Amino acid sequence: MKFLPRLRIKLRRLKKLAKSPLLRKLDLLHESKRKRVFQESCEAYQMQIEDEYEKASPIMQKIKLPYSTRERFLYDGTFHEAVGRVLLIAQFFAMMPVYGVTSKRPSNLQFSWRYLRTCWCLIFIASSLVDLGLSLYKVLNDPITFNSIKPIIFRACIFLVCVYSLNLARKWPKLMHYWDQIEQDLPQYQTQTEKWQMAHTIRMTMFVGMMLSFAEHLLSMLSAVNYSAYCNQSSDPIENYFLHTNDEIFYVFHYSNLLAVWGKLQNFYSTFIWNYMDIFVMIISIGLASKFRQLNDNLKKFKGMNMSPSYWSERRIQYRNICMLCDKMDNAISFITMVSFSNNLYFICVQLLRSLNNMPSIAHAVYFYFSLIFLIGRTLAVSLYSAWVHDESRLTLRYLRCVPKESWCAEVKRFSEEIASDMVALSGMKFFHLTRKLVLSVAGTIVTYELVLIQFHEDNDLWDCQQSYYF
Amino acid sequence: MKFLPRLRIKLRRLKKLAKSPLLRKLDLLHESKRKRVFQESCEAYQMQIEDEYEKASPIMQKIKLPYSTRERFLYDGTFHEAVGRVLLIAQFFAMMPVYGVTSKRPSNLQFSWRYLRTCWCLIFIASSLVDLGLSLYKVLNDPITFNSIKPIIFRACIFLVCVYSLNLARKWPKLMHYWDQIEQDLPQYQTQTEKWQMAHTIRMTMFVGMMLSFAEHLLSMLSAVNYSAYCNQSSDPIENYFLHTNDEIFYVFHYSNLLAVWGKLQNFYSTFIWNYMDIFVMIISIGLASKFRQLNDNLKKFKGMNMSPSYWSERRIQYRNICMLCDKMDNAISFITMVSFSNNLYFICVQLLRSLNNMPSIAHAVYFYFSLIFLIGRTLAVSLYSAWVHDESRLTLRYLRCVPKESWCAEVKRFSEEIASDMVALSGMKFFHLTRKLVLSVAGTIVTYELVLIQFHEDNDLWDCQQSYYF
Amino acid sequence: MKFLPRLRIKLRRLKKLAKSPLLRKLDLLHESKRKRVFQESCEAYQMQIEDEYEKASPIMQKIKLPYSTRERFLYDGTFHEAVGRVLLIAQFFAMMPVYGVTSKRPSNLQFSWRYLRTCWCLIFIASSLVDLGLSLYKVLNDPITFNSIKPIIFRACIFLVCVYSLNLARKWPKLMHYWDQIEQDLPQYQTQTEKWQMAHTIRMTMFVGMMLSFAEHLLSMLSAVNYSAYCNQSSDPIENYFLHTNDEIFYVFHYSNLLAVWGKLQNFYSTFIWNYMDIFVMIISIGLASKFRQLNDNLKKFKGMNMSPSYWSERRIQYRNICMLCDKMDNAISFITMVSFSNNLYFICVQLLRSLNNMPSIAHAVYFYFSLIFLIGRTLAVSLYSAWVHDESRLTLRYLRCVPKESWCAEVKRFSEEIASDMVALSGMKFFHLTRKLVLSVAGTIVTYELVLIQFHEDNDLWDCQQSYYF
Amino acid sequence: MKFLPRLRIKLRRLKKLAKSPLLRKLDLLHESKRKRVFQESCEAYQMQIEDEYEKASPIMQKIKLPYSTRERFLYDGTFHEAVGRVLLIAQFFAMMPVYGVTSKRPSNLQFSWRYLRTCWCLIFIASSLVDLGLSLYKVLNDPITFNSIKPIIFRACIFLVCVYSLNLARKWPKLMHYWDQIEQDLPQYQTQTEKWQMAHTIRMTMFVGMMLSFAEHLLSMLSAVNYSAYCNQSSDPIENYFLHTNDEIFYVFHYSNLLAVWGKLQNFYSTFIWNYMDIFVMIISIGLASKFRQLNDNLKKFKGMNMSPSYWSERRIQYRNICMLCDKMDNAISFITMVSFSNNLYFICVQLLRSLNNMPSIAHAVYFYFSLIFLIGRTLAVSLYSAWVHDESRLTLRYLRCVPKESWCAEVKRFSEEIASDMVALSGMKFFHLTRKLVLSVAGTIVTYELVLIQFHEDNDLWDCQQSYYF
Repeated sequence: MKFLPRLRIKLRRLKKLAKSPLLRKLDLLHESKRKRVFQESCEAYQMQIEDEYEKASPIMQKIKLPYSTRERFLYDGTFHEAVGRVLLIAQFFAMMPVYGVTSKRPSNLQFSWRYLRTCWCLIFIASSLVDLGLSLYKVLNDPITFNSIKPIIFRACIFLVCVYSLNLARKWPKLMHYWDQIEQDLPQYQTQTEKWQMAHTIRMTMFVGMMLSFAEHLLSMLSAVNYSAYCNQSSDPIENYFLHTNDEIFYVFHYSNLLAVWGKLQNFYSTFIWNYMDIFVMIISIGLASKFRQLNDNLKKFKGMNMSPSYWSERRIQYRNICMLCDKMDNAISFITMVSFSNNLYFICVQLLRSLNNMPSIAHAVYFYFSLIFLIGRTLAVSLYSAWVHDESRLTLRYLRCVPKESWCAEVKRFSEEIASDMVALSGMKFFHLTRKLVLSVAGTIVTYELVLIQFHEDNDLWDCQQSYYF
Repeated sequence: MKFLPRLRIKLRRLKKLAKSPLLRKLDLLHESKRKRVFQESCEAYQMQIEDEYEKASPIMQKIKLPYSTRERFLYDGTFHEAVGRVLLIAQFFAMMPVYGVTSKRPSNLQFSWRYLRTCWCLIFIASSLVDLGLSLYKVLNDPITFNSIKPIIFRACIFLVCVYSLNLARKWPKLMHYWDQIEQDLPQYQTQTEKWQMAHTIRMTMFVGMMLSFAEHLLSMLSAVNYSAYCNQSSDPIENYFLHTNDEIFYVFHYSNLLAVWGKLQNFYSTFIWNYMDIFVMIISIGLASKFRQLNDNLKKFKGMNMSPSYWSERRIQYRNICMLCDKMDNAISFITMVSFSNNLYFICVQLLRSLNNMPSIAHAVYFYFSLIFLIGRTLAVSLYSAWVHDESRLTLRYLRCVPKESWCAEVKRFSEEIASDMVALSGMKFFHLTRKLVLSVAGTIVTYELVLIQFHEDNDLWDCQQSYYF
Repeated sequence: MKFLPRLRIKLRRLKKLAKSPLLRKLDLLHESKRKRVFQESCEAYQMQIEDEYEKASPIMQKIKLPYSTRERFLYDGTFHEAVGRVLLIAQFFAMMPVYGVTSKRPSNLQFSWRYLRTCWCLIFIASSLVDLGLSLYKVLNDPITFNSIKPIIFRACIFLVCVYSLNLARKWPKLMHYWDQIEQDLPQYQTQTEKWQMAHTIRMTMFVGMMLSFAEHLLSMLSAVNYSAYCNQSSDPIENYFLHTNDEIFYVFHYSNLLAVWGKLQNFYSTFIWNYMDIFVMIISIGLASKFRQLNDNLKKFKGMNMSPSYWSERRIQYRNICMLCDKMDNAISFITMVSFSNNLYFICVQLLRSLNNMPSIAHAVYFYFSLIFLIGRTLAVSLYSAWVHDESRLTLRYLRCVPKESWCAEVKRFSEEIASDMVALSGMKFFHLTRKLVLSVAGTIVTYELVLIQFHEDNDLWDCQQSYYF
Repeated sequence: MKFLPRLRIKLRRLKKLAKSPLLRKLDLLHESKRKRVFQESCEAYQMQIEDEYEKASPIMQKIKLPYSTRERFLYDGTFHEAVGRVLLIAQFFAMMPVYGVTSKRPSNLQFSWRYLRTCWCLIFIASSLVDLGLSLYKVLNDPITFNSIKPIIFRACIFLVCVYSLNLARKWPKLMHYWDQIEQDLPQYQTQTEKWQMAHTIRMTMFVGMMLSFAEHLLSMLSAVNYSAYCNQSSDPIENYFLHTNDEIFYVFHYSNLLAVWGKLQNFYSTFIWNYMDIFVMIISIGLASKFRQLNDNLKKFKGMNMSPSYWSERRIQYRNICMLCDKMDNAISFITMVSFSNNLYFICVQLLRSLNNMPSIAHAVYFYFSLIFLIGRTLAVSLYSAWVHDESRLTLRYLRCVPKESWCAEVKRFSEEIASDMVALSGMKFFHLTRKLVLSVAGTIVTYELVLIQFHEDNDLWDCQQSYYF
């Protein structure tokens, strides 16, 4: 409220650069009067804005537009719509087998054990279990070290996430219904760009994540080809390659092309799922943070104005609803968050341990550093996106601090006290909350570990041919 | 309030899957009217529910039922009743010598120095002291390491807990009276299943804990037999066995069968008490958390309704009473909590240190990993159960957040501020509070320690024949 | 309020052990009536208690009593009186040179540069500075290790504390006046025992601390005699002894008896001051915590009763005053607290490092373990006593939680919010607050350090004859 | 309110030292009456003070004064004025290229890409980039250790800070306008000394920082001359010197005088910027903390008096404005804060690691210890100055606690709750807040690291001739 006129004075001053004190006094007088009038007409202003918008929207919808823009205009801005294609891609990789993810309304969502996608998912889970068993058998026959259990950790995480995502798929229709109910209650978006925003962020996250993951997989294949040539166990280069990348299979069975293809597919799918679980946490975080932002945008528009208690009461209930949504989603995905975080932490530590050793070849070095940077970047991205939910939920308080004295009422008080005392954030099974402070403490832990490692480093030759190659 | 009709809409939608916008509008209109009526009749609804329940209960008590169901119906749902048999079992193992633990009312509880169970307890304490002395003598004659002080730590903990439990037994009648007073004030259970719930959880905890502890003791005996054959000191296998499991006795005295039996008994009892102190903390936690849940269940039933200030005042006082109970119980048992936690932490560290060494035999490996997993599982169980008290006490806040604007009064405000600013949790002598965050920091500490160990590991041969075997 | 009648019921039940339900109902009816009457007469009750007390006190003062009891009765219960003799002893050891510490009223306190005690203090500071210089010279001529800087740390701490205590002495009269003003405003003690309590605790702390410190000094002398015989540098045993205990002096100068006596005195005084700085922090903590307790005792007496807003307003202002006193004292002594804490931490670490080495003799072992336990015990005592201030200041909240609905007013609200949001505790220059949580984190740090030490321990022979003996 | 008369009584007592009880009673009576009158006239008192001040100021401005005093009197006490010369010096070193930093009003501030200072800045950035590239090339050709990456870290930080400061320069005019608006709203300074205070502190910080940095640079040159003589690579001593201090250049190019001069200039500028980024954070902190202090001074003046709600409302809005300014400045400089903190931490760790090695010469030892102490001192100064913002913002609460019962209103309540629940502090990109607790945890981390280093120290000879000398 107070800053708008001030900014204008500031701008005017920049232009004129000189003004007599008398003029300034008069200005101030004028300002204060204008301000009073302004405050009285706040409510009127709000109505007018909403009226204008309502009149404008049907007109806008009639205009013929080019495809991509038109698609944007058909958007309702719901999370269900935004997340549809992302889930569709996940379903190709045997995750989240829910029917109707791309439909317009969440009411079409359905889960059934008899759908093809569910069966596909079950088959992959079975296949993962076999792979995990083979890895376990191989690892337990050698002495166990921090480095050698890498394949087990990797495959166990994949298996757990797959099973858990099947479970989540069953609850998904209900969750989306609930989300939809809360979304319909929130203050309306004013422009199509705002509506489009969340969906755009979600899709870009998915796209960039997938591209990088694909690039990493290609590099890993290149490096594996190189590696298998270096310590070759067989004359056939292709056989050689598979003997390395799926050593857990051929530790038990003799080489066969069918098994090699199965191993390859399993690896490809595992890599996708390994990346997808991080992306999934990011997407949910973006969804939740966007809902808080939608509320905050509304509060920002009326910041410092004299609003009625009913306005505040409505906002408080909306805030409470998003909090409850946050809590519900956290309960639903916190296991995945937990697995994703501990997995990332473990892999960063192992990779840093390996980084101290000499690389066998340039291809390895390139792949290794790309994969390390990708890993750290991904972990940071998950952390920051999920901390965004907490940050955005605290931001609301800033607008409440600017409520003028005249419209300070019991409702605003209750609202601000609730925000100040509540902890709204995604969590890892309630053991830790995902905030920016967590990022620091995790980074601190890794740096300390790395420092100790560097200080007492001896070359342990972790790149010997005996070691499992593909994670 | 708002979600009940919404859920119904959602369900209806799932069935019909299509509805004209007009119909939807009408529905909404109907809903809002229904809601208003509903809110007005909230108080009436409450009374009606309570009336129905009161009418139903005498009828239900007359019905003849099969034993186990009948037993359930005779339950009042008090903590005293629920904990009775657990304490009875403890008394067989020279703990908590209170008379009247299985009686119907806590008024029958009595402590006297002249009861047989008290004498039995005193004898065991004396015996423990002798055993501790012998252990101390043996350990101090060798160089002291982190690993070698294990028997002293073990036996000192047993001794301290026994003495402390005798002291607790003296205060037990008063504590149970106090608990009973507070329980009678709480909102009544609506169903027999709810009444039965707490007792069931407590008994299952006791049963599972005892079974696992028994299994571990059997495995330990098997492994000891194996071990004594491996580094045999005498021709007689039985003598050999006792020479190993009670080396602190036969370090001083010559072998005699009487001493061997005493040592065996002492070991058996010690193992029980070592497990029991964790189970005891769990049981108290379950009791306290259940009381908070009882209150929360009542709040949940009237969530979002317009309740009178007197309703909130009553709930606030009940909440305060449970807090005070929590504080009183924490003062009474926090020494045991402290001992239990530090003991578990020390043992996990020692076992992890040992886990890096090669096992002398398969029997050892099986026993070792079973015992390690049991130890970690038990520690986790104690942590999570005791964190439950804190979690449940914070949950109340959720229901207060949904109080509608109209019935927001000074009492609700006071209630919610008190919950937001208080810290209700069991503690280890006020040095740390038992929350889920603690679990994370403890786990982090152990993992860091283990990482450093792995990094600089040298095989220290902790499994030599000189070392004390039984803990 | 509610618990007093309840306890009575409980006790009655214990006696009768059976009562018909009808009787119980009647009892309850009677209770509620009695309670109402009771609440109405709360204010009257308060006045009556105070009246009685006022009448009683002049009579009591006239009675002729044996010396020790009489002395108690002449006590006003002020901190100035309680701390008088403690400061007098300190003045013998060149600390806190204020005139009039044993006088009845703080108005007699005076500081002047011309008093004999001030000169004595200045002489000791100069002597310490010389000693510190000699130590620095000796240590810097050898390679610096964690262990070898011990004498510098020790002497630098003594020097800093002496200078700071001189500075504190200048502010002491003002501080005591301020304290006195606040004490006179607090609710009156009801009995002479209560008045005597604080002084008793303070004197016992001083006495026990001094005795233990004296015992440690004697043991250290015994052990030094033993040590000097073991690595003798001269034929005269007395010269030998001084050559060891004051090696920093005789590193520069040739042996002379005068220097030896000076060194001995310096050591004796240093040991006293080293212990005294911890005791001083404890004494201030006891003083502050006692003032909070005095307030809490008053609140406890009227717990759950219907008190007037003016009662609460008065208590709030008294609480605020003690908080401000706490803040003022913290500013005055937080440098000493900081030095005391870091000094203790460093010494514990060094001693634990030494504890891994073999002792040269039994006399050493006895002295070493006694001194280590004394050090840890003293550190724990300082921590717990200073944490007591925080604990006692939070305790007030408990009585505010029990204020009945009827007398819940703006003043009580303000009072409870202020306690809930403020942090009242002694601090180490505001870098850390002295609470029970701090104790845990300090203990955790030491244990971790010790664990790492044990794990990578190599015998460094820290007991060679070259090393500085006396700290 | 209550303490002013009390202090007077105390002083009087000190003078007279004896007064009859009757007189004291009369005094108290008189005091209470005087107090009542005093409170009634609070508002009048406030107006009178302000009136007097307004009358006095025009008179004072007419008086002819000596230069330095006159300069002080022309001061408005704005941050823009205080920081002008500091920024001017920075501009000589290619930082913060804004036009008009020394002008009277912030409205004259301008940024343009075509100003000479902007071009100068761009040229330096390009030069830094080339230098960074050369360093990278040299370091990556050797095995990477914690110590060897020092030049990269140093140069990368310089480069990042330069680019970021260019970006900050573009936003600077807007930020200063905003700051100016908020400053004009704050309560007026009462004396010229108060006005002068902030500017004085800022300039002294700049001056002391620059002097120490210059001394360190001179010492580093001396030590480098010494060092280059020790491991000489060429016959010409000047060439030798440059071959050492700019080894990253001559690793690629042959020696030439032009390159040597460029290298020297680059080093000189880099050293300045390396120090300046810390000083810059300090200056902003001083500015923000001074604004909070300005508000606190006003609150202190009216502490304990009965002020009208409008007085509190005004103060609350002013406090809120400073908070928003704090937030805005934090967003603008938090990247620099982050770089400055991590840079300092890294350098302290590296220097401590080096401190364990033997020094090649006395010149080295002197330079090394001076530079280490300067580094630690600078880090501590940045930490404490930036923690001051938080401390000063919390201090406001103390004055609100003393508001008398009669004038306790909704506005004071809102004010105190907002302060109690908000976190006002500078931050490192929101990952950590700069408070005194942070200082402790950072110090703790460094000490732990140093302890581990000392314990497992092996002489790694970090002072060999191969190593990069200049950082």
